[in-house]
Amino acid sequence: MPGLKELILKTRSYRRFDSSLKLTLKELIELVELTRYTGSAANLQPLKYIISADSKTNSIIYDNLAWADYLNNWNGPVENERPAGYIVILTDKNIKENADIDIGISAQTILLSASERGLGGCMFASIQRDTLRKFLKIPQNLKISLVIAIGKPLEKVIIEDAKPGESIKYYRDKESVHHVPKRTLKEILFKTY
Amino acid sequence: MPGLKELILKTRSYRRFDSSLKLTLKELIELVELTRYTGSAANLQPLKYIISADSKTNSIIYDNLAWADYLNNWNGPVENERPAGYIVILTDKNIKENADIDIGISAQTILLSASERGLGGCMFASIQRDTLRKFLKIPQNLKISLVIAIGKPLEKVIIEDAKPGESIKYYRDKESVHHVPKRTLKEILFKTY
Repeated sequence: MPGLKELILKTRSYRRFDSSLKLTLKELIELVELTRYTGSAANLQPLKYIISADSKTNSIIYDNLAWADYLNNWNGPVENERPAGYIVILTDKNIKENADIDIGISAQTILLSASERGLGGCMFASIQRDTLRKFLKIPQNLKISLVIAIGKPLEKVIIEDAKPGESIKYYRDKESVHHVPKRTLKEILFKTY
Repeated sequence: MPGLKELILKTRSYRRFDSSLKLTLKELIELVELTRYTGSAANLQPLKYIISADSKTNSIIYDNLAWADYLNNWNGPVENERPAGYIVILTDKNIKENADIDIGISAQTILLSASERGLGGCMFASIQRDTLRKFLKIPQNLKISLVIAIGKPLEKVIIEDAKPGESIKYYRDKESVHHVPKRTLKEILFKTY
């Protein structure tokens, strides 16, 4: 395996996929299983998961996600560039009402492991929750917190330095290359002792 | 480097460290730098960081953390088992009020990278925020969100299966081995399609 830094750099938000690659439930289960071994606030582990590698369910999930807010002329990937599967992260409110830090830990773990397998994905918090809940018959105690799309990435993503005051909105150039401005180390490192 | 799964398994919450190992600022900066390349909701990147490898500042941070809620007879590591450094994660409210998912992504990235370097750590959300803010002169727009302690782990942590209904409270046995019950895959995998 490459070093972790290489894996982190490969773990971009991908929104276009090679839909000829199919995922198996086994692969998605392996990703979810890894989250069992991550830290959880007070070890409460309130997260639960729905996974889909099924084209009909994938299509329902797809219809209930908002794709790429900053790309005004693009409403999501075309049919043959859609994700091969999804992981829906749910928060069990019977255990804990808000577990967003746990969710970030879990999602990053899943996406790093996807990268290690040559896959990639994208996180969605902008979800039509009521509709999705109805379609997937999710009980009220399970809050729909995050959806992760997974597939074989079909796009090039370039990270750029965003200087203080510059826009951090990602954009696509004429060649459909996706550019993502990231704040500099100098800007995010507030103080050192 | 080992596979990611091995790294995830090594990434436990460690609360006792070999304090003879010192950290350099360079090492902590490298950990923070990696977080630049992680996903961030709407790419806003509202997180900022304070790092400390300085014994006086470490001691101030130590005094303002609540150590291991479930271990009733233990108030934190003794002098020579304390962390060698800290990373304080701040949310810049001028950019975004609540960025807990970003914080989880960032914290897990930092801890996985620490594991790769033979280090380990622990996340703290239970912090005496007002006192810490005063000591570290943190302006009001920067919310103290999470503290990560870093050092060379000096304890053995064992993961166990917690069957549904069983306690998920971690505990120490007579040999000071730390046990962490984790919910089973069957319990967290709600539905598959």
